Amino acid sequence: MTKGGGKKENAMWGGRFTAGPAAIMEEINASIDVDRRLWREDVAGSKAHAHMLAAVGVISDGDNTAIQKGLDQIAGEIERGEFKFSAALEDIHMNIEARLKEIAGEAAGRLHTARSRNDQVATDFRMWVREACDNAEVALEDLMRALAEKAAPNADAVMPGFTHLQTAQPVTFGHHLLAYVEMFSRDASRFADARARMNENPLGAAALAGTAFPIDRNATSKALGFDQPCANSLDAVSSRDFALEAMAAASITATHLSRLAEEIVLWASPHFGFVNLSDAFSTGSSIMPQKRNPDAAELTRAKAGRIIASLNNLLIVMKGLPLAYSKDMQEDKAATFECFDALGLALAAMAGMVRDLTPDRDAMKKAAGLGFSTATDLADWLVRELNMPFRDAHHATGAVVAVASERGVDIADLPLEEMQKIEPRITKEIFSVLSVDASVASRTSFGGSAPVNVAREAKCWLEKLKMENS
Amino acid sequence: MTKGGGKKENAMWGGRFTAGPAAIMEEINASIDVDRRLWREDVAGSKAHAHMLAAVGVISDGDNTAIQKGLDQIAGEIERGEFKFSAALEDIHMNIEARLKEIAGEAAGRLHTARSRNDQVATDFRMWVREACDNAEVALEDLMRALAEKAAPNADAVMPGFTHLQTAQPVTFGHHLLAYVEMFSRDASRFADARARMNENPLGAAALAGTAFPIDRNATSKALGFDQPCANSLDAVSSRDFALEAMAAASITATHLSRLAEEIVLWASPHFGFVNLSDAFSTGSSIMPQKRNPDAAELTRAKAGRIIASLNNLLIVMKGLPLAYSKDMQEDKAATFECFDALGLALAAMAGMVRDLTPDRDAMKKAAGLGFSTATDLADWLVRELNMPFRDAHHATGAVVAVASERGVDIADLPLEEMQKIEPRITKEIFSVLSVDASVASRTSFGGSAPVNVAREAKCWLEKLKMENS
Amino acid sequence: MTKGGGKKENAMWGGRFTAGPAAIMEEINASIDVDRRLWREDVAGSKAHAHMLAAVGVISDGDNTAIQKGLDQIAGEIERGEFKFSAALEDIHMNIEARLKEIAGEAAGRLHTARSRNDQVATDFRMWVREACDNAEVALEDLMRALAEKAAPNADAVMPGFTHLQTAQPVTFGHHLLAYVEMFSRDASRFADARARMNENPLGAAALAGTAFPIDRNATSKALGFDQPCANSLDAVSSRDFALEAMAAASITATHLSRLAEEIVLWASPHFGFVNLSDAFSTGSSIMPQKRNPDAAELTRAKAGRIIASLNNLLIVMKGLPLAYSKDMQEDKAATFECFDALGLALAAMAGMVRDLTPDRDAMKKAAGLGFSTATDLADWLVRELNMPFRDAHHATGAVVAVASERGVDIADLPLEEMQKIEPRITKEIFSVLSVDASVASRTSFGGSAPVNVAREAKCWLEKLKMENS
Amino acid sequence: MTKGGGKKENAMWGGRFTAGPAAIMEEINASIDVDRRLWREDVAGSKAHAHMLAAVGVISDGDNTAIQKGLDQIAGEIERGEFKFSAALEDIHMNIEARLKEIAGEAAGRLHTARSRNDQVATDFRMWVREACDNAEVALEDLMRALAEKAAPNADAVMPGFTHLQTAQPVTFGHHLLAYVEMFSRDASRFADARARMNENPLGAAALAGTAFPIDRNATSKALGFDQPCANSLDAVSSRDFALEAMAAASITATHLSRLAEEIVLWASPHFGFVNLSDAFSTGSSIMPQKRNPDAAELTRAKAGRIIASLNNLLIVMKGLPLAYSKDMQEDKAATFECFDALGLALAAMAGMVRDLTPDRDAMKKAAGLGFSTATDLADWLVRELNMPFRDAHHATGAVVAVASERGVDIADLPLEEMQKIEPRITKEIFSVLSVDASVASRTSFGGSAPVNVAREAKCWLEKLKMENS
Repeated sequence: MTKGGGKKENAMWGGRFTAGPAAIMEEINASIDVDRRLWREDVAGSKAHAHMLAAVGVISDGDNTAIQKGLDQIAGEIERGEFKFSAALEDIHMNIEARLKEIAGEAAGRLHTARSRNDQVATDFRMWVREACDNAEVALEDLMRALAEKAAPNADAVMPGFTHLQTAQPVTFGHHLLAYVEMFSRDASRFADARARMNENPLGAAALAGTAFPIDRNATSKALGFDQPCANSLDAVSSRDFALEAMAAASITATHLSRLAEEIVLWASPHFGFVNLSDAFSTGSSIMPQKRNPDAAELTRAKAGRIIASLNNLLIVMKGLPLAYSKDMQEDKAATFECFDALGLALAAMAGMVRDLTPDRDAMKKAAGLGFSTATDLADWLVRELNMPFRDAHHATGAVVAVASERGVDIADLPLEEMQKIEPRITKEIFSVLSVDASVASRTSFGGSAPVNVAREAKCWLEKLKMENS
Repeated sequence: MTKGGGKKENAMWGGRFTAGPAAIMEEINASIDVDRRLWREDVAGSKAHAHMLAAVGVISDGDNTAIQKGLDQIAGEIERGEFKFSAALEDIHMNIEARLKEIAGEAAGRLHTARSRNDQVATDFRMWVREACDNAEVALEDLMRALAEKAAPNADAVMPGFTHLQTAQPVTFGHHLLAYVEMFSRDASRFADARARMNENPLGAAALAGTAFPIDRNATSKALGFDQPCANSLDAVSSRDFALEAMAAASITATHLSRLAEEIVLWASPHFGFVNLSDAFSTGSSIMPQKRNPDAAELTRAKAGRIIASLNNLLIVMKGLPLAYSKDMQEDKAATFECFDALGLALAAMAGMVRDLTPDRDAMKKAAGLGFSTATDLADWLVRELNMPFRDAHHATGAVVAVASERGVDIADLPLEEMQKIEPRITKEIFSVLSVDASVASRTSFGGSAPVNVAREAKCWLEKLKMENS
Repeated sequence: MTKGGGKKENAMWGGRFTAGPAAIMEEINASIDVDRRLWREDVAGSKAHAHMLAAVGVISDGDNTAIQKGLDQIAGEIERGEFKFSAALEDIHMNIEARLKEIAGEAAGRLHTARSRNDQVATDFRMWVREACDNAEVALEDLMRALAEKAAPNADAVMPGFTHLQTAQPVTFGHHLLAYVEMFSRDASRFADARARMNENPLGAAALAGTAFPIDRNATSKALGFDQPCANSLDAVSSRDFALEAMAAASITATHLSRLAEEIVLWASPHFGFVNLSDAFSTGSSIMPQKRNPDAAELTRAKAGRIIASLNNLLIVMKGLPLAYSKDMQEDKAATFECFDALGLALAAMAGMVRDLTPDRDAMKKAAGLGFSTATDLADWLVRELNMPFRDAHHATGAVVAVASERGVDIADLPLEEMQKIEPRITKEIFSVLSVDASVASRTSFGGSAPVNVAREAKCWLEKLKMENS
Repeated sequence: MTKGGGKKENAMWGGRFTAGPAAIMEEINASIDVDRRLWREDVAGSKAHAHMLAAVGVISDGDNTAIQKGLDQIAGEIERGEFKFSAALEDIHMNIEARLKEIAGEAAGRLHTARSRNDQVATDFRMWVREACDNAEVALEDLMRALAEKAAPNADAVMPGFTHLQTAQPVTFGHHLLAYVEMFSRDASRFADARARMNENPLGAAALAGTAFPIDRNATSKALGFDQPCANSLDAVSSRDFALEAMAAASITATHLSRLAEEIVLWASPHFGFVNLSDAFSTGSSIMPQKRNPDAAELTRAKAGRIIASLNNLLIVMKGLPLAYSKDMQEDKAATFECFDALGLALAAMAGMVRDLTPDRDAMKKAAGLGFSTATDLADWLVRELNMPFRDAHHATGAVVAVASERGVDIADLPLEEMQKIEPRITKEIFSVLSVDASVASRTSFGGSAPVNVAREAKCWLEKLKMENS
């Protein structure tokens, strides 16, 4: 990075400016450290633009050939790390343009016909976000696969279901993991929707008003994979809702990731002991050699803060900006890149952890029996067998729990007489519903935690994900 | 609202609790002031649940009839403002249930069979958000209609197009308004997508694990307008991504509203003077009688803060919550209600302002000619007619502008010789592209600001919106 | 609330407006539902202003007397719930002014001399925020007292100290609670700093430029408890950093509250079982009668979302507003009121919970011994007694833990020979540092968890808080 | 940066781990790319710790000497860019420690005695934030100086004061700039308060519980410039409110910067034309050679989004974290660094712009006379001279404005008779208050915009800032 050294050439601002920008101005203004990541999109956009200009006769075929060759050379240079980026040239667009001039001479100067940095950056950035959405979808499907694969053999692994972090009712580990598959599948569909909605081409909007050159926007759209050109030139250069929507999808995904991460932290804590993480996904302590810290889960949880804040960042930046382009919008990229960098890491780490973790079925089952977790089953039995109104059954069950709690035993271990003191019609049949296995097996309602349901759902997801993959 | 008075009956927490909650506990715990807005959804959900329970034989037809009648009576009481809400009964669900018990006696106690407050509130709230999305879509279409109706007669009303709030190139007022139609149409489609994705029924997930009762979740789904039941009971009661997605769509919409609001504030300021707002949409000053303040625009701009913050609020609340229901999630409703209250107001106010405002075509056209706004047209002419590379043309144009600026005249008023000193090949044909009318007329590229384009687009939108309305 | 009924009198906007505002305009514009909470401040400010105007001779003593009497009467009416608020009169200031006119006639019209709604609302709001800061400080001190009172008798109650939610080293429950006293004491000092910084009087800035009337701003400052008048009239009416700073202090406090709330949720879960909450601070379940849900803790945790978002809200609203007053700033109050309502509830609920909770010393001590929590003590012994470099001691300890882990015993229960296989110089003295009691007792460094430290700190805090209270 | 290459040595996690971390784990876990900025603080903290350990006899003088020399050597290597950072070594602390081992051998292993990465990073980070606050204060003072220096010669430069971006009353440019001096001075005092509050030393808290080694925390506090050691070891390693407070101060500062930036964008727009920015602080356009874009102002405005979001980020990360250290807290640094990088740039750019800008006094004065800006002066005259109640005067003034508006003239140009038709007691004396110069001159109330006030205030600030500087 050439920075601050020597006399600045002010090539891009034309003949009017007589003094170079102050150092602070260059520092706040230059975006090359951030937007150099757009180089692939910038080269692709320029190549498509040049081809189109040649096709409609605005530039000659010779110029086009020179431009194409020059851009290919530049792509190679960047790929090989040989390209010299310069902060004085502000951004990726001017860096490439300046280099193209060195390579292709006058032809390079014709590339900018019927184009402006405003539509150029909007196009580059939209292509980047489009790919980020595609990547997020793929990563989400991989995570879903990891979850479904772990769920299948654990469809019948009983664990406590919590509400308020209190033991509520038994569920199965497979059922719990598939809940996240549902969430992540909605997340994936959000990225797909965002991608479809954003897939319109800003190129050709020029600075803000379109152009008098006879350009063919359908041609560049097709070349760059867009469904169609943006229908309003002011909108094309001024809008960043495509990035906001992608970041919103990322933020919602991040809440789901953070919830699963929190659970892994809890499950891995010695007080739960539901899962073990291998050395690959836990770290030790510099002072406490016995520790196996679920760092990856904690970092994934924390990434939610970064992702949500990056959405907040761009929402704040865009709020109240008049049309068309304002320089404020240059800040869109740092926020978006940070968002998707964090999301990509968090998704990959989570898929890794899910594949890595080993559930302790015995510990989970034992825990599932604590806290009177089948009290609802007792209440339901009273309703079903004795035809008690639910609220009365609930009241009677509460009384049974109170007695069991006082005696320090589970309700399954309470003598029948004790229950009959509270509700004389209770029979010994009651004991058939008070085990955790019986409880989960009975939950056969659609979406319920019965192992038979869960196994079917896991299989169904695995098939669906296989098809999407192929 | 009965609050804090007398001994609290602790009806809902069953037989185990021996002491009433402390006053502070009641205050932090009670949500009735907020969630009473869910009463319609709660009644509808309970009616559907009872019908289904009767259909599958879990409750008797007689009980169902009593429940239906009781719920209808309650709906009437609430509608007429006769219902007594009680904070001691915490929330809308318990308030209605307690009243149903008074009306329908023991039958009321059977309504809660195979159901929990967890799936009940998830269902109610999802229905509310679904309707909020529908309302947002309708309001957005009304706003789009207002914009397109104002754009049509102003398809050729030249105004300055700005970048960096500096005059850039002439556009037309119609073109500018249609840019917002594009944005708001994407916003509307986001609400539609969110609505489609969320339209699954949580009811029947019970507390978290499903139920052993032979419920028919398809029946309640159909009755309540859901496409299908949620496929995982833990997900059904634990997820709030449907609200987050709706609020994200609202937040993005809010950025668009705030941008247009900012522009109205600018346009209405005496330094622009592009539009006039009638008395209906401006206010006076208590101390400065001459003022006509665009309060509605400012408030709309500010609502973006509230809407974005409400999304932020729920994202933060949901971050890191373990499954299944945690009481934190009770905070979802205040944030969501505030979000959509603000959005509804802002959309309606904006549609009102757009219909109300009168553009000052003369002032806009005059402004469009300032600031050398046709410099790009000059540069493009040099490229097109003299085959200059764009960058060279740009440089030459900059020199022309510098001379005009020094002389204090527009470039259209610069003698030909002055231009020829800079570029000898310039002919008097140049003057045909230097007027603002010629400039906009030339921008016939797809999406460009040529009046012919704009008129066609406005008509197209008006037809599309008519069809959606009918 | 009179809303939308009958013909609107447009008294406040003077003679120029010929049409009333549209219904939607009234709805978005009226703030009376929110800002009526400022009535005490508004009356106080007006009384001070009138006294001052009389003192400097701008109004007569007779007018002042009429104004004072009228305002006192209005205060009484509002206090008794007899005042009729009107949305058509927009806000609390105009509601009171209109009523004053009914009571005091022409004198009322003189009250607004040398004043504007801009400085009036800035003054009212600043006084409200000032009191909110004072209230927050008092509530924080009460919470600190609750914590210190609970810490004192538990200065020696050993519990596991966690990092990464893994058992790290033993600490004491008292030490843990006092960590929060430190945090909350910094929070209280932030409110004190904010209060001191904001305590300047905007009254007399008039609309934005000051006034030509010979007002005495020191007099109104003194009357309203301000240290001095704001030194720049534009700043006085345009700035809301006082509210932002108070909300930032609230947000930081909320993170601390949410952390303690999270811990209470964890501690109360059956998997930890460290504390019990009484019926007063837990709730039952509608379907699971055995549950004791720590709702107040969960709600307190969730309030952090609301409080942080309210700060975000006002930061977004204020971003980029030109001077002086813009109507956007009307949104300041809803955000601030919501912030402090949530904070007040959360602080009171937390103090209640802390006083209510009963630690289970046995369960905590037992837990403290799990997970090889004294491994650091072993490593430190190796360093101290054998002069091993810490990193080598750390390595050797890791090996000891691995052996103990394999055998399924604590390191304190490992035979000496096993340790000597790893490090032959270990003697039986090692066992003196491997108990949790020995471990905490040894941490006598300044700020360490030794019971003697903790007891002293708790006492010190209780004395300090007593003094502040008296 | 060594990344992913070859077999990872797992030196820091001791003897227990048998497998290296997965690649994704390394990537999410390593913070060295971010926290290498803490190297100065880390070296200083280690030097102080070693000196203290030697002073109390925990390590030998020889070891201390080796450590000091080694650390000095490392500092030199980093300074000269010769240090090889390694991602496999995770963070700056382990990178330095590993290098120290190479240099100093066994002595290096003793440095970690009575210390943990938890208190080490808390100390390093606190020192970094402390310096960031100091830097912010200095930069704010420089900005205040720039503003006051520009205000002094413009104390009497009349400009329109706006409310709602409508012309309200005349003020002066100097007065307007000094409003920002007030805001920035409060911002500076917030950083000072934050700095004072955070200046306690976490070092010696060890992992979380303190230590049994006889350390002297006052000695390290003194060496590192802290006022005293943190009083609770759990708080010392778990709290990040010092960073949150600094970021909150930055966020509030950012709202002020964004407001001034918005005004510069407005003022520099051709529709206002109040100020000119030199080439040093404006940029050209790639397609519109005539543009002079206020990029630095726009970027400064946008930085508010980044700064506010970084606060939001860390608030979200910290919410609900149990004590003591969780790995989530590793995310504190990226957010904080980004916040202060953006703030530093924005403050420097703003000071540069303020110094650079040239007000166009004629244009401002002309604008000040538009929009009936002295209507309030007319109303005040009616009150003062005719003893009319303000509200009646307001009404009469409105009528005068309506007549002037109809005639298309300013009120100062309205014939006396026209005014007397509305209020017969008006005399020709009225014209003495209707000029903008008379208006501002009359605002002599404390804090008012009278040039005499403004000149005095500017001088006062310049003296104060000179003293702070010296």
